[in-house]
Amino acid sequence: MGMKNKKPRSGPGRPSSMEDPYRMICDAAAALFAEKGFDNTSLQDVATAVGVTKAGLYHYFRTKHALFEAIVLDTLRDLHAGAVAAIAAHDGYPDKLTAFMTAHARYFSEHGERYRASFFGRGGGGERAHLTPDERAMRKAYVQLLEGVVEAGVDAGTITVSDVPTFARGVLGMLNWMARWYRPDGRLTAAEIAESYAQILLAGALPR
Amino acid sequence: MGMKNKKPRSGPGRPSSMEDPYRMICDAAAALFAEKGFDNTSLQDVATAVGVTKAGLYHYFRTKHALFEAIVLDTLRDLHAGAVAAIAAHDGYPDKLTAFMTAHARYFSEHGERYRASFFGRGGGGERAHLTPDERAMRKAYVQLLEGVVEAGVDAGTITVSDVPTFARGVLGMLNWMARWYRPDGRLTAAEIAESYAQILLAGALPR
Repeated sequence: MGMKNKKPRSGPGRPSSMEDPYRMICDAAAALFAEKGFDNTSLQDVATAVGVTKAGLYHYFRTKHALFEAIVLDTLRDLHAGAVAAIAAHDGYPDKLTAFMTAHARYFSEHGERYRASFFGRGGGGERAHLTPDERAMRKAYVQLLEGVVEAGVDAGTITVSDVPTFARGVLGMLNWMARWYRPDGRLTAAEIAESYAQILLAGALPR
Repeated sequence: MGMKNKKPRSGPGRPSSMEDPYRMICDAAAALFAEKGFDNTSLQDVATAVGVTKAGLYHYFRTKHALFEAIVLDTLRDLHAGAVAAIAAHDGYPDKLTAFMTAHARYFSEHGERYRASFFGRGGGGERAHLTPDERAMRKAYVQLLEGVVEAGVDAGTITVSDVPTFARGVLGMLNWMARWYRPDGRLTAAEIAESYAQILLAGALPR
């Protein structure tokens, strides 16, 4: 695992009166990364948004990369935990697949800035080159969780998919792309859209 | 329509010996935008990559934004033209949908850098705010082209989709997300993956 970020209990220049400064910093930074991208956001911008000194920020994050990484890992961890719970709460693989998809969409709609920062905050398609081993491992675990559901459905004979990894990436593509066009004031909620996607993927667009 | 980029026939500092300097500049810039993102790429980087002076570059593009915009608009124009041709070349709406998807994937696999620059080159999820009217119009036209195919299939009774715009965005999500994980040396070609997606979308993952 990579370097842990410090969560000190006291120190000069630290925003001691805040409820949960670590969380506040991550939230403010996620909003900036989501809006302006990693390269256009400075630690000073984050400090200003939170209302602390840059020295105060350093108690929590030494570098902008460490701050970004913390947001991404938190996001991936929460997405994964939410999906695990959703899968466990449903029976049958078609329903488990739908549950995975709606859980993902619900996380996205409730934590849009963290989500967009994590998936689109880095500029450039050379994305993959910048992943830390931790992030790579967590992204892989999430894909594998989805693949496991589909695979189990195929084994049980209740899902027919010719290529499980391709199918899983297609599912994640549908879901991740929502971050680019979804608006909270739209016609459908994120979960409803995910459910509509699940329905199409399961039933197909050809008349039965 | 927005400002046209100049394509001068002569001038000092211009790379007069090149075959198609406009094209060369766009290709080099697309590679940089795709790899490093818009914010981390300077006009000087592009000039260096092409092997011209910055003054020479100015004959074609006045600003980095104009250069980026030219790449995006060329990409959207080519994607649209390719999809129109593919749709026209097939009969029946299920096949036209598949043709749209494989044409998109083929463009992406043949012009990966332009594609990644156009869809992921800008950092930040605040993406939409930066679109010029031209780009917004072209993106919309492309979505509408796809929606038209699905809509016509629904009207003909050969495609059943409860919500055409949501379905179309799901299709584009599957395809666009490929740019994030697809590798040319992988097991399947981009067109094969798109065909596999089309098959799932049409037939569904529930046993028939």
